[in-house]
Amino acid sequence: MQFELTDDLIKQVENFIEVNDNKGLQKLLKDFHYADIAEILDELNLEEAMYVIKLLDSETTSDILMELDEDNREKVLKNLSSKEIAEEIEELDTDDAADIISELSEERQQEVISHIEDEEHKAEIKELLAYDEDSAGGLMAKELVKVYETWTVAGCLRRIRAQAKEVTRVHSIYVVNKQNKLIGRLSLKDLIVAKSEQKIADIYITSVDSVNVHDGAEDVARVMAKYDLEAIPVVDDNQILLGRITIDDIVDVMKEEAEKDYQLAAGITSDVEADDSIFEHTKARLPWLLIGMLGGIGAASIIEKFTGSMGDFIVLLSFVPLIQATAGNVGVQSSAIVVQGLANDSIDGSIIKRLFKELLLGLVNGLAIAIIAIIISHFLFDTPYNVSITIGIALIAVIVMAALIGTFVPIFLDKRGIDPAVATGPFITTSNDVFGILIYFLIAKLILGF
Amino acid sequence: MQFELTDDLIKQVENFIEVNDNKGLQKLLKDFHYADIAEILDELNLEEAMYVIKLLDSETTSDILMELDEDNREKVLKNLSSKEIAEEIEELDTDDAADIISELSEERQQEVISHIEDEEHKAEIKELLAYDEDSAGGLMAKELVKVYETWTVAGCLRRIRAQAKEVTRVHSIYVVNKQNKLIGRLSLKDLIVAKSEQKIADIYITSVDSVNVHDGAEDVARVMAKYDLEAIPVVDDNQILLGRITIDDIVDVMKEEAEKDYQLAAGITSDVEADDSIFEHTKARLPWLLIGMLGGIGAASIIEKFTGSMGDFIVLLSFVPLIQATAGNVGVQSSAIVVQGLANDSIDGSIIKRLFKELLLGLVNGLAIAIIAIIISHFLFDTPYNVSITIGIALIAVIVMAALIGTFVPIFLDKRGIDPAVATGPFITTSNDVFGILIYFLIAKLILGF
Repeated sequence: MQFELTDDLIKQVENFIEVNDNKGLQKLLKDFHYADIAEILDELNLEEAMYVIKLLDSETTSDILMELDEDNREKVLKNLSSKEIAEEIEELDTDDAADIISELSEERQQEVISHIEDEEHKAEIKELLAYDEDSAGGLMAKELVKVYETWTVAGCLRRIRAQAKEVTRVHSIYVVNKQNKLIGRLSLKDLIVAKSEQKIADIYITSVDSVNVHDGAEDVARVMAKYDLEAIPVVDDNQILLGRITIDDIVDVMKEEAEKDYQLAAGITSDVEADDSIFEHTKARLPWLLIGMLGGIGAASIIEKFTGSMGDFIVLLSFVPLIQATAGNVGVQSSAIVVQGLANDSIDGSIIKRLFKELLLGLVNGLAIAIIAIIISHFLFDTPYNVSITIGIALIAVIVMAALIGTFVPIFLDKRGIDPAVATGPFITTSNDVFGILIYFLIAKLILGF
Repeated sequence: MQFELTDDLIKQVENFIEVNDNKGLQKLLKDFHYADIAEILDELNLEEAMYVIKLLDSETTSDILMELDEDNREKVLKNLSSKEIAEEIEELDTDDAADIISELSEERQQEVISHIEDEEHKAEIKELLAYDEDSAGGLMAKELVKVYETWTVAGCLRRIRAQAKEVTRVHSIYVVNKQNKLIGRLSLKDLIVAKSEQKIADIYITSVDSVNVHDGAEDVARVMAKYDLEAIPVVDDNQILLGRITIDDIVDVMKEEAEKDYQLAAGITSDVEADDSIFEHTKARLPWLLIGMLGGIGAASIIEKFTGSMGDFIVLLSFVPLIQATAGNVGVQSSAIVVQGLANDSIDGSIIKRLFKELLLGLVNGLAIAIIAIIISHFLFDTPYNVSITIGIALIAVIVMAALIGTFVPIFLDKRGIDPAVATGPFITTSNDVFGILIYFLIAKLILGF
């Protein structure tokens, strides 16, 4: 039942291509879902992929295009003429069509659009291209089923039969007034259950969620997830119905968002996947490593400053990794909680209140860690009593500081309109490394008096 | 249009409760979505929340219950009698009903079930409770619209009108044969567009995705996201139709999964939110901090071992934070890429191939970092030439090692059936800290000969 991408299958496809057995290839691929064919094409080289694309009809290939890895799609599009792309575009819903076109160069966009024959489709795609990619407008499709409040159920069903042919999946039927303002909704089920002579005005549901065309993609995702919606209508500032967004697009937004946050937390910029090239990986990872290195250099200069006067207390240096690891871990924990809270809109109360809570939490965790560290360092390492106590006190201070920085920075960035997720991972670890080590030596100097 | 949870609104609700103004409260809440009311209740104290729940009808409160924070729901359920819970359960779809019941104690479950009056509902809920929570069976609902291939379109519409009343949203209509085996599907749209005297057997679509009742929740999510499905039928080993899973439940699975991975990467065990108590937070964070501390102690003992013989090369100690930070960052990056690749099923090829790629990547990144570090340490810190070179070489070795450990451990865990996400964050950082520092001093000893 389930599709599995095996080496055998890929070999089979490659063999058909090699001997130009079009019939065999078509027969093999006929029963596969386009998303499965896309997975196969992602494993082929460009020449082979183009062979398959030229072979299949544009109804299938347009869907396949949408499912290809972005890198591969770019290559395939480069190998298609503007006219060929326009043919694929004709088969796609307006939202997918606009997505594909927006990946082309400015010049190519114009060419492709000029080749689209369906004037209505063309106008709608042009409209969609004007919206920001990460807004409701950038996500919505123009395809939807819309009825006027003045229609009867029977008339409605008749007209829906016509409209619905263009719409892949009918979720809700949107009810508008004469000015095309969204005033309510109906489900197909409601329509089927209703009597045919009833007026839409009498049966439609007036409470209808909608989003503004300029709302951000993440906000749309939040609304749809919260209210368990499968589609949501998009309106302009005057409540005029412009389009609709379906849950499958939102699932993609959520996945991308989650992956981006995860990668940021792990110190990886830009979207990079396991199978990307070493160059892509270096580009994504090296910047954060450099930031970490700067922190390391900063820490080195702090240590150098203190080592000279340290004398007998040189054993303090052995505990630098402990201080650093603790500062880093606490910072990442605190910032992750805040970043997630901000994403879920579940952080309320003032910054002060939140910082106070982290302060308390830091004291509790710090005390626990400090006591254990004092015992271990004193008994296992024969560290003098005063040095052990110093390490313990420094640990508490460092944990509290790391928790506060980890909490404050993402909240601060969020207030400034910067994605707080950049403040997790190496960013927090690095700053906490440096501050942590500085605090450690300052406290040691104060207590031990070197 | 959009609901906003304001302090004013909460105050308003609290005031109505205080003066027992039930009419006013009902009027205020009447137009709110149940998910919004749940958000309000999450902000009230238990007594107030119970007041609202007792006030509203069970059709609304059952939906509200599903949307409450888990902690709050637990408290509310404790304050309801078994009979009251059973009344809420009667209003819920079978999947939600089973979810609520499974949160109760064994003994309470029996009591609540015995109070359910609708025998069919009771039997279905009992069936669902038998499945693993994280399986397709644990996610599915028994409510679905099913037609036999022998029916006509007209007869079908008539019967669907009856069935559909129980089903909140009709996604697909599932077509079964006499043995109740799933053989195809139909959309409501297809049915409306078809002629009323046609047989279902002539118009249904034979290609229908389905999942096995024992498939894991994450696999179901992957299939639904890949094929852009809004609902998927669930079958047993004999292809008998058992239930269906809708995308809103999958959205929740995806969100939870993403949050769990994110928290694991940040060193937070168990699901904890910004607003949970300090005790909950300590429970979730302290374990990882302790692991980090053990690493720090390990590193301390390594440093102690080497310091005695180090003599003039004591400056090496200043660069311990640099080594440690780099090892940690590289390890987290590598493991995050692997964990994400495994989650997306996009890691192919052998472990050896992947390790080789990370080796190369480590060499590239290592060389870049090493050269910069050598220059900085030599010119800024007046470190002797041989010491600077030592640091550079150690950095390359440490980066390669960290990349290999970061790649190997999650793959290894995955093969063993353990969630690879536990291998990110503090786990990787800690082991890399210790190994990194060990390698650093071993290389230094070898080159500088102390």
